[in-house]
Amino acid sequence: MKNREKRLQKVRDFLTKSSYDAIIIPSGDPHFGEYVQSHYACREWLTGFAGSAGTVVVTRTSAALWIDSRYFTEAEQRLAGSSIELMKMRLPGTPSITEWLKDMLAKDSVVAIDSNLFSVNEYNEFKKELTPLKVKLIKDPFTELWIERPSISFGPASVRGLEITGLTTVQKLNLVCNRLNLKGKFLYILSTCDDIAWMCNIRGEDVPYNPLLISYGAFTDEKFYLFCSENAVTDELSSHLSESGVEVSSYKDFHQFVADFPIEYQRVSPAGKISAELYSNAVSKGAQFTPDTIAGGVVAYVKAVKNEVEIAGFRRAMHNDAIAWVKFWMFLEEKILQDKLTLTERELALKMMEIRGENQDYRGESFSPIVAYGESASLPHYSTFTGEERSICREGFLLVDTGAQYLYGTTDTTRTFVMGDLTKEQIRDYTLVLKGMINLSMAHFPAGTRGASLDILARGAVCTAGKLYTHGTGHGIGHNLCVHEGPQSIRMEDNPVAIEPGMVLSNEPAVYEEGRYGIRVENTILCTKWEENRFGTFYRFETLTLVPVDISAIDKSLLGSDALEWINRYHARVYNELSPSLNEKERVWLAGKCLHID
Amino acid sequence: MKNREKRLQKVRDFLTKSSYDAIIIPSGDPHFGEYVQSHYACREWLTGFAGSAGTVVVTRTSAALWIDSRYFTEAEQRLAGSSIELMKMRLPGTPSITEWLKDMLAKDSVVAIDSNLFSVNEYNEFKKELTPLKVKLIKDPFTELWIERPSISFGPASVRGLEITGLTTVQKLNLVCNRLNLKGKFLYILSTCDDIAWMCNIRGEDVPYNPLLISYGAFTDEKFYLFCSENAVTDELSSHLSESGVEVSSYKDFHQFVADFPIEYQRVSPAGKISAELYSNAVSKGAQFTPDTIAGGVVAYVKAVKNEVEIAGFRRAMHNDAIAWVKFWMFLEEKILQDKLTLTERELALKMMEIRGENQDYRGESFSPIVAYGESASLPHYSTFTGEERSICREGFLLVDTGAQYLYGTTDTTRTFVMGDLTKEQIRDYTLVLKGMINLSMAHFPAGTRGASLDILARGAVCTAGKLYTHGTGHGIGHNLCVHEGPQSIRMEDNPVAIEPGMVLSNEPAVYEEGRYGIRVENTILCTKWEENRFGTFYRFETLTLVPVDISAIDKSLLGSDALEWINRYHARVYNELSPSLNEKERVWLAGKCLHID
Repeated sequence: MKNREKRLQKVRDFLTKSSYDAIIIPSGDPHFGEYVQSHYACREWLTGFAGSAGTVVVTRTSAALWIDSRYFTEAEQRLAGSSIELMKMRLPGTPSITEWLKDMLAKDSVVAIDSNLFSVNEYNEFKKELTPLKVKLIKDPFTELWIERPSISFGPASVRGLEITGLTTVQKLNLVCNRLNLKGKFLYILSTCDDIAWMCNIRGEDVPYNPLLISYGAFTDEKFYLFCSENAVTDELSSHLSESGVEVSSYKDFHQFVADFPIEYQRVSPAGKISAELYSNAVSKGAQFTPDTIAGGVVAYVKAVKNEVEIAGFRRAMHNDAIAWVKFWMFLEEKILQDKLTLTERELALKMMEIRGENQDYRGESFSPIVAYGESASLPHYSTFTGEERSICREGFLLVDTGAQYLYGTTDTTRTFVMGDLTKEQIRDYTLVLKGMINLSMAHFPAGTRGASLDILARGAVCTAGKLYTHGTGHGIGHNLCVHEGPQSIRMEDNPVAIEPGMVLSNEPAVYEEGRYGIRVENTILCTKWEENRFGTFYRFETLTLVPVDISAIDKSLLGSDALEWINRYHARVYNELSPSLNEKERVWLAGKCLHID
Repeated sequence: MKNREKRLQKVRDFLTKSSYDAIIIPSGDPHFGEYVQSHYACREWLTGFAGSAGTVVVTRTSAALWIDSRYFTEAEQRLAGSSIELMKMRLPGTPSITEWLKDMLAKDSVVAIDSNLFSVNEYNEFKKELTPLKVKLIKDPFTELWIERPSISFGPASVRGLEITGLTTVQKLNLVCNRLNLKGKFLYILSTCDDIAWMCNIRGEDVPYNPLLISYGAFTDEKFYLFCSENAVTDELSSHLSESGVEVSSYKDFHQFVADFPIEYQRVSPAGKISAELYSNAVSKGAQFTPDTIAGGVVAYVKAVKNEVEIAGFRRAMHNDAIAWVKFWMFLEEKILQDKLTLTERELALKMMEIRGENQDYRGESFSPIVAYGESASLPHYSTFTGEERSICREGFLLVDTGAQYLYGTTDTTRTFVMGDLTKEQIRDYTLVLKGMINLSMAHFPAGTRGASLDILARGAVCTAGKLYTHGTGHGIGHNLCVHEGPQSIRMEDNPVAIEPGMVLSNEPAVYEEGRYGIRVENTILCTKWEENRFGTFYRFETLTLVPVDISAIDKSLLGSDALEWINRYHARVYNELSPSLNEKERVWLAGKCLHID
């Protein structure tokens, strides 16, 4: 790829001209979200590697790309024949970026990083770890290097009314400030677009899957300030924001705003979610900086605990989505198992979107759909739309992991369907994955329990087969927001956040047999308050998802009586809640899927 | 109590004479163990309160005693009519010691603490938290104040041969130094008597229940130094230590030794397990201090992972003890249920000791026996020997939690026996406690799993009844050493220590219904390596305890099929392993207890 070497040379010319010795180019943008606009795809422009995570480092004589295990194969293909070295993270012998740079460069060499793309935390860590090299904060150099660089695109934003959000911006501001509980005047600085969208009760279209508008926000205990593009502000939005007491300004004016705000207001932000540039502007005139040490930041924390109206929206979204899943599963059985048609993973993913689209409140998928047949499913992050075109046959498992955005909620569901003959090992693995999912669903636990304490309930069942999934069991889910939302999680790694009533999480144990098959079953669960008595306060989970699970691969002797009883209760509920919305044929079909297991 | 006020006055006279404004008097000794000799019972001498934990603070005009919830009732009784205020820890509104002192005393007042009784960590925390007061390290003032103070008593020590310990001191020194992995020369300072006993393969009789000798230890990567009383060193011990390359010196010379050791040897110790006095001597001539940051200290950490010979000893101890439990349970049934005799908790505790004594390797109880009938058992830390004389009747539950020291292992077992009619609630609670105990016993988990991640397996079953025990589920157990041993644990609170093969732990979920009844079932479990494959390394538990559990209170529908199967397998194993050591009558009886449940 000639282009790549030319581009590398451009970057090196820039280094030479500026007297820098290296530059670190990350994958993110100044908003620390999961998806970034192509404007920020500098690493992809330079390397040709398009994965969602990866960092490229260029020195005057060499270059290397750090990627995680999800992308080993893809990155190898992309980098074939290039001068960029591939660094497989977390493998023995792979140096970290800072180790590599210290090895390549002489003392006092200058490593440049874009001050808008690294948090002040990351910047400080680089400074520490790169000693005796020097770290130089620079402005985005790609505006000049990348000729056809896309500009940032700002779409229109829309309003979510009180009937969807449950709380006004003023009420949310009160909740957040009470939780923050700071002494003295403060200006809280928000870079995270989902926190801003939630605070303002608005949604946008500026990145894929997450209904966000590219924006900054700030607030005192009296007022919320929104900084977004003029494009975003429709008449509806404008009157909504003015009624909500939100002062709207231009996106490009945010840095100046935080610099100019009266210096007696301490600046507050999570140090991991404010860019080095923004931080330096915030304190440029002498204002104090107080890091927000609440896990994920106070807004993310308060947002994670859904209110009653948000929860009602989730229920409605789950109901809509379950209807779509019923229709999808019926289609699958009719076309492939009865009519013996050949369909591809991609056709099925599109079919699901088509079915979901019949609901007027559908606003697109909540992440790139995974329809993975056979060995495709052995990759936890398989992408149906970028992989090869695989056809579904009448044997083994088909794994479908998709979710939708509805006006009032976000869904994320995985079902593994039996397409034909299974091995004994597959039946065992399927049963254990299901058992793990159910064990976590049945948990009762005291207030204060962290997700890391609950993980074993799901993971442990899979471990009894001597197998292990290396991802977490559960992630937080936003309310018509990001399908991956913090700060809560259910995973082996410790996370100080206790699981609290109102938090919505995924519950997704799995087995991946490389090159053979993959099994995952995923419901969405809501933490609810169960009992309060002389022993304390107890919580449990309510399953929000209403999609039947395939019972045709269950080994009852392995599942155990508790889990069997749970499945029967679950399927009775699924049938009762969905059947009024189904036609006669669908109802009969669903009754067959929800049959009581003896 | 006139005496108490006189003693308080003596302490106050000392404060005045020395120009101190307050003194903090703790419960511990310079060795940071669970039991201390009466020589160190200054807090008890002063307050009359004899509980195992509690701190008294005396100022020139006031005094207060801080105790935890285990001792609320007892301390109230003891302090009735005294001028000492009772401070119930962890209740809303109770000030901490430092808060109270800062409230009572003027700026720059001097708070004295015994430099031998507080770790350097505690000292530093006091200094920080007590600002603007001053903290003064002093020598033990009670030698002069307490006229009839017992002196420290040093008993003889005995040797544990290689057939019991599995490793020589030299081999242990190698293991410990490898794990420590320090650069440069070092002198490691050991204050903890169990770590020293383990390193030297010796045991003593200087404190109750824990077979320890009061001693200090130190080592370089070449040599172990033991500091103990001349009384401890029998001829056998002397030749054992000299063969083991251990240099023995006098207990009283230890401080001088660490002061005088060549200063090019950095001093190493866990900062929480070296007294302020010892620390100051260790660095007095300019040596560096490097804190050992391994949880619990490197020796405790290495000691926690039992070797094959130690594990074989545990198995033998468990076998001996199970025979005693069989005889004990038979006695209980015959005397109380058949002959309708009246027996007290105390008589039963003594009976268990008598039965255990029939084994020549028995070396006493491993903790104060808990034989708790009915409401007695609702106190998790009920003490049979200090409580009132309660008789056992033919209804409800009898909880027996006792353990023994054998030459080659330590046991700790709890069984809850059905003495007659039970309520539905009691049957449910008993079943759920048992279910929790079994769930943890059945765990399979990946290498790296911490105890906090496993706790929910046991606790969660109890929580399904809306009940909760507030103690941990599992503590480490020493090998003919302390029945409570770190650094591993299985509890809700996080502990960074991963559970590893060779670690021995208790597994003891419970329900306590205040004033009514208590249920606890406790086995001892050993972590073992189970499988290593492409997914990683997996561990599980082997149950070491061989005592049948009372199956007469089980509600099968609640227990679940997995747990029922576990019990049947467990009882088959108990019968197979014990029956060859039993007479015909005992065998028949045991077969009845180990009946297969359908």
